[in-house]
Amino acid sequence: MQLGIVGLGRMGGNIARRLMRGGHRMVVHDRDRQAVETLVKEGANGAHDLGALVGKLEKPRAVWVMLPAGEPTEQTIAQLADLLDADDVIIDGGNTFYKDDMRRAAELGTRNLHYIDVGTSGGVWGLERGYCMMIGGEKAVVDRLDPLFATLAPGVGDIPRTRGRQGPAERAEQGYIHAGPAGAGHYVKMIHNGIEYGLMQAYAEGFDLLKSKGSDALPAEQRFDLNLAEIAEVWRRGSVVTSWLLDLTADALVADPQLGGYSGSVADSGEGRWTIDAAVEQAVPVPVLSSALFARFRSRQQQGTYADRMLSAMRFGFGGHVEKNAE
Amino acid sequence: MQLGIVGLGRMGGNIARRLMRGGHRMVVHDRDRQAVETLVKEGANGAHDLGALVGKLEKPRAVWVMLPAGEPTEQTIAQLADLLDADDVIIDGGNTFYKDDMRRAAELGTRNLHYIDVGTSGGVWGLERGYCMMIGGEKAVVDRLDPLFATLAPGVGDIPRTRGRQGPAERAEQGYIHAGPAGAGHYVKMIHNGIEYGLMQAYAEGFDLLKSKGSDALPAEQRFDLNLAEIAEVWRRGSVVTSWLLDLTADALVADPQLGGYSGSVADSGEGRWTIDAAVEQAVPVPVLSSALFARFRSRQQQGTYADRMLSAMRFGFGGHVEKNAE
Amino acid sequence: MQLGIVGLGRMGGNIARRLMRGGHRMVVHDRDRQAVETLVKEGANGAHDLGALVGKLEKPRAVWVMLPAGEPTEQTIAQLADLLDADDVIIDGGNTFYKDDMRRAAELGTRNLHYIDVGTSGGVWGLERGYCMMIGGEKAVVDRLDPLFATLAPGVGDIPRTRGRQGPAERAEQGYIHAGPAGAGHYVKMIHNGIEYGLMQAYAEGFDLLKSKGSDALPAEQRFDLNLAEIAEVWRRGSVVTSWLLDLTADALVADPQLGGYSGSVADSGEGRWTIDAAVEQAVPVPVLSSALFARFRSRQQQGTYADRMLSAMRFGFGGHVEKNAE
Amino acid sequence: MQLGIVGLGRMGGNIARRLMRGGHRMVVHDRDRQAVETLVKEGANGAHDLGALVGKLEKPRAVWVMLPAGEPTEQTIAQLADLLDADDVIIDGGNTFYKDDMRRAAELGTRNLHYIDVGTSGGVWGLERGYCMMIGGEKAVVDRLDPLFATLAPGVGDIPRTRGRQGPAERAEQGYIHAGPAGAGHYVKMIHNGIEYGLMQAYAEGFDLLKSKGSDALPAEQRFDLNLAEIAEVWRRGSVVTSWLLDLTADALVADPQLGGYSGSVADSGEGRWTIDAAVEQAVPVPVLSSALFARFRSRQQQGTYADRMLSAMRFGFGGHVEKNAE
Repeated sequence: MQLGIVGLGRMGGNIARRLMRGGHRMVVHDRDRQAVETLVKEGANGAHDLGALVGKLEKPRAVWVMLPAGEPTEQTIAQLADLLDADDVIIDGGNTFYKDDMRRAAELGTRNLHYIDVGTSGGVWGLERGYCMMIGGEKAVVDRLDPLFATLAPGVGDIPRTRGRQGPAERAEQGYIHAGPAGAGHYVKMIHNGIEYGLMQAYAEGFDLLKSKGSDALPAEQRFDLNLAEIAEVWRRGSVVTSWLLDLTADALVADPQLGGYSGSVADSGEGRWTIDAAVEQAVPVPVLSSALFARFRSRQQQGTYADRMLSAMRFGFGGHVEKNAE
Repeated sequence: MQLGIVGLGRMGGNIARRLMRGGHRMVVHDRDRQAVETLVKEGANGAHDLGALVGKLEKPRAVWVMLPAGEPTEQTIAQLADLLDADDVIIDGGNTFYKDDMRRAAELGTRNLHYIDVGTSGGVWGLERGYCMMIGGEKAVVDRLDPLFATLAPGVGDIPRTRGRQGPAERAEQGYIHAGPAGAGHYVKMIHNGIEYGLMQAYAEGFDLLKSKGSDALPAEQRFDLNLAEIAEVWRRGSVVTSWLLDLTADALVADPQLGGYSGSVADSGEGRWTIDAAVEQAVPVPVLSSALFARFRSRQQQGTYADRMLSAMRFGFGGHVEKNAE
Repeated sequence: MQLGIVGLGRMGGNIARRLMRGGHRMVVHDRDRQAVETLVKEGANGAHDLGALVGKLEKPRAVWVMLPAGEPTEQTIAQLADLLDADDVIIDGGNTFYKDDMRRAAELGTRNLHYIDVGTSGGVWGLERGYCMMIGGEKAVVDRLDPLFATLAPGVGDIPRTRGRQGPAERAEQGYIHAGPAGAGHYVKMIHNGIEYGLMQAYAEGFDLLKSKGSDALPAEQRFDLNLAEIAEVWRRGSVVTSWLLDLTADALVADPQLGGYSGSVADSGEGRWTIDAAVEQAVPVPVLSSALFARFRSRQQQGTYADRMLSAMRFGFGGHVEKNAE
Repeated sequence: MQLGIVGLGRMGGNIARRLMRGGHRMVVHDRDRQAVETLVKEGANGAHDLGALVGKLEKPRAVWVMLPAGEPTEQTIAQLADLLDADDVIIDGGNTFYKDDMRRAAELGTRNLHYIDVGTSGGVWGLERGYCMMIGGEKAVVDRLDPLFATLAPGVGDIPRTRGRQGPAERAEQGYIHAGPAGAGHYVKMIHNGIEYGLMQAYAEGFDLLKSKGSDALPAEQRFDLNLAEIAEVWRRGSVVTSWLLDLTADALVADPQLGGYSGSVADSGEGRWTIDAAVEQAVPVPVLSSALFARFRSRQQQGTYADRMLSAMRFGFGGHVEKNAE
């Protein structure tokens, strides 16, 4: 199939590459001319602006927008909407808040344009492993674009089949699903990231316990000097906590068990926050997912918090305690 | 009544003072001769060692041990047990783990000695406000010592009576209770401190939200530059969150709304930890009490944690993210 | 002063009463004619609709809207805006989301109308204890209305003065503050309620630990059969956890230590949820405040959760564990 | 090698089987004669009591105890210690608390007996997948027993090698490690289980959010009716949250997306609890691991908690709120 792609960063560029390898024809645009040039050398058709991109696409057109969520995506979609014709499709593959998808789909629908949201997991590994995709939008449109998604997806691979599944592999087994109407794709991706935060924090706390068991702060007879790289490795082999995140942890620990090159000032993105907002809206208790987010907030306040100073102040107030400096 | 007191630190010294003001006779001992001298000048009978202290007491004797929990208390009680006679009483007014009380009471019981544990709240304010006491041990022995407890307690004061209470004020309304057998006093005090941690953290988080609402990190049009000292003050007046801890917070905020003199490296004591161990043992979910303790642990790691660096390492692994330095 | 009040429920009715007792003149309206009649008998001037209410007020008018947050308040303010004249004031005393205040103040400002938001704590006790108020809006308008706020507030009373405060009592010491521009009042009240949730949950967890210490689930030799009413009472006297919420807890425990008449299906209101949303927006870790909200969510799912069944399913999957029925 | 095994339950029986398949000679005992008979038919040498078992083993002997942690294991080890000779080895493969291992190793060491603790993950899948083992004890003894561990372990299999690892596969890559001195094996296994709880709860919360997004409690226009089995399936394919626990979740959701056959009354075992105790002892914040444990505690109180009733009581006290019955 033919597809337009706007945004040739790490994600957009590799999506174009994987699709071209699968025999699809790409018309690509990016503000950065160099990024366009690179893809053109790899076989894409370059466009110097959105109008040119739209002009090079056959109807009904499909344009994949792969830009930072928020204003960049919002503006690009607004401009595309003015350039496209009835029955054309805009695909948002970025990390958009799902309620923005719902709003956009309704607005574009009044102009007979289609809107598809694609939550994509796979990161820097997607070109090689394929992209795991959660797709929202009208069923007929998702079906029309199916060849693209099928190429992007990891495919069945050598992953053991889920027990109870029979017959030919469905989309889900190839690594993509039509999750529901517009917004459903990004909603599912948002929850995916919320879970991801929780999983990461669970490993981080566990390894912190292993690490601190060798700390000078404990009496010598209570210490174990544990080899964290070996522990991560052995858990990859038949244990209950085997996962891809553990594989990555094992990689990092082989390179440096102290993890000395990492700042520990941990960023968070929209999805992790929106997951908590969704939990509040849906009245679902999410102590683990919220704790994981808060740990990241806290990690970035390496000078201490006002909350902590207030605890010190209260302790001084009722007990005359003077807090020592930090450990 | 006559009472021996071992340990004349801030708590022990003031307990002796309050009892003397109430007409009781104190025999006091401390490793620090100066501390003994000071109390002697205020009317106490000084003893230069435990043997002398026991020798000055009339049978059946009562000795209040007011030392740091753990070894200092343990050893002193062991020495006293060898010096005392049947029907004498040892009172542990420190912050002992309640299972240690249970063990000691059983051991001393085989020698016909009595053991009383007193959980005491009131801190530096006790001399003035009186001590709130939770007492464990044999009922007959607690009754025998009642005049001491009645003097130490705050008394009814001008606190409005709890609805539904009738008749003469019971012990609880005067500020002390016989909580149950040996260990029960410190158990109740332990839970008191667990709650205290939770209350403190609730205020700290709330004021952190008020403070950060004026932060440069927010867009200017979303900021409020709030006066935290005024807010603490107004909440003291008819709001639902009125409390003594809020009073102390208001004191601190008047002195310095930035709380700049406090390190924010917050200590924790045994009770807060034991409360979580008790919750684990009793299978009671305590998300708030545990979060409060963990916030203190985290407050003392102002150089960042291994757990946080591990999150950074995983993020680099799957997304190529390089964490920036801390805010 | 003269004031119009719309909404004569428990809060609105008592606000009118307290103001009349202070010599102010009330013009009152409610959809429920009976509620109007009751207040008229107590000295208010009744109005059968908003137009009549506005007609009876002298310029510049002030109308206090005391209705459920959301649509009822929104619609009433819209109608009032059409009836009022330049320099009149609309006061929202309900539990409005502070960003709605900010939007309304901007909209009304374009029509030269003023908007004041008043976060009010005090509940059913306000008529007697006075209302603790956090006020947002233009300073000049808050000053104009000061006589009303001064009457509604608890006043200095017999609460000990905060250390470091000097001179005549400021507004905060009388129980009300001008917190900042429109929205600031409800923002501060929102955080107040977030703290309230945390404080309540801290007590609830602590008393749960005390209660469960007597449970049959523990070996007999580890049990204490504690008197929770006495414990709440004693903690009211000189302990660190003294508070108004503890007073209320003591009331309830005297009436029934089992708390058998309460469902334990705990509601939450907007403020508790918005506090968590604000923390997410401001990147402030609030483990205690969020845990308290989630405990309420969980309390209402007395049939068990999908999350819990999923844990059971995983345990069966890796360990063949079959979960027994609930305790 | 030759090995004695005491305890032929699911774990012990399969360990014997896997070792026999690997060419090792088993001498087996269980209180249940039928269990012994079954293994004898499969090639083991049966022993009707511990004395017989010891008598059939060649020196230096090795006996693997695979019994429930606590008294059964404790007593069996005590009996074995009286039957064994210098340089013999006792292996505890159960879920023993690591401090008990440390105590036992010290005690047995005074009698020139060796003690090895093996934390084993793999559950019902171990016979087929192999057992992931974390081993504590003296290095020379672990080396002596290496042929047994090598057979039990999963082996390298087709798991992609961790980046940075070179040379022949080490023990860790075959699925077992010598973690450190006695107790270190069970310590590492304990933390493994703590992490496991956290991972499970992260998935459970995420799927609860997905499920509740289709709930009647939301306005119709905000609902998504999501297919949870498809979502679990697609996440197995190239997403960041891929794991063995997710595989098991996918299995369960194919069988019944409602998970109707599971009680949701979730058990916990010692390791999850000890992990929190260790965190308290080591002063490591573990909000996720503790939240996961508390969720299990809460899941078993399907009649509501005393804590929740206390919240209701306070809300009635300050606001006159009467809580409705549960949803």
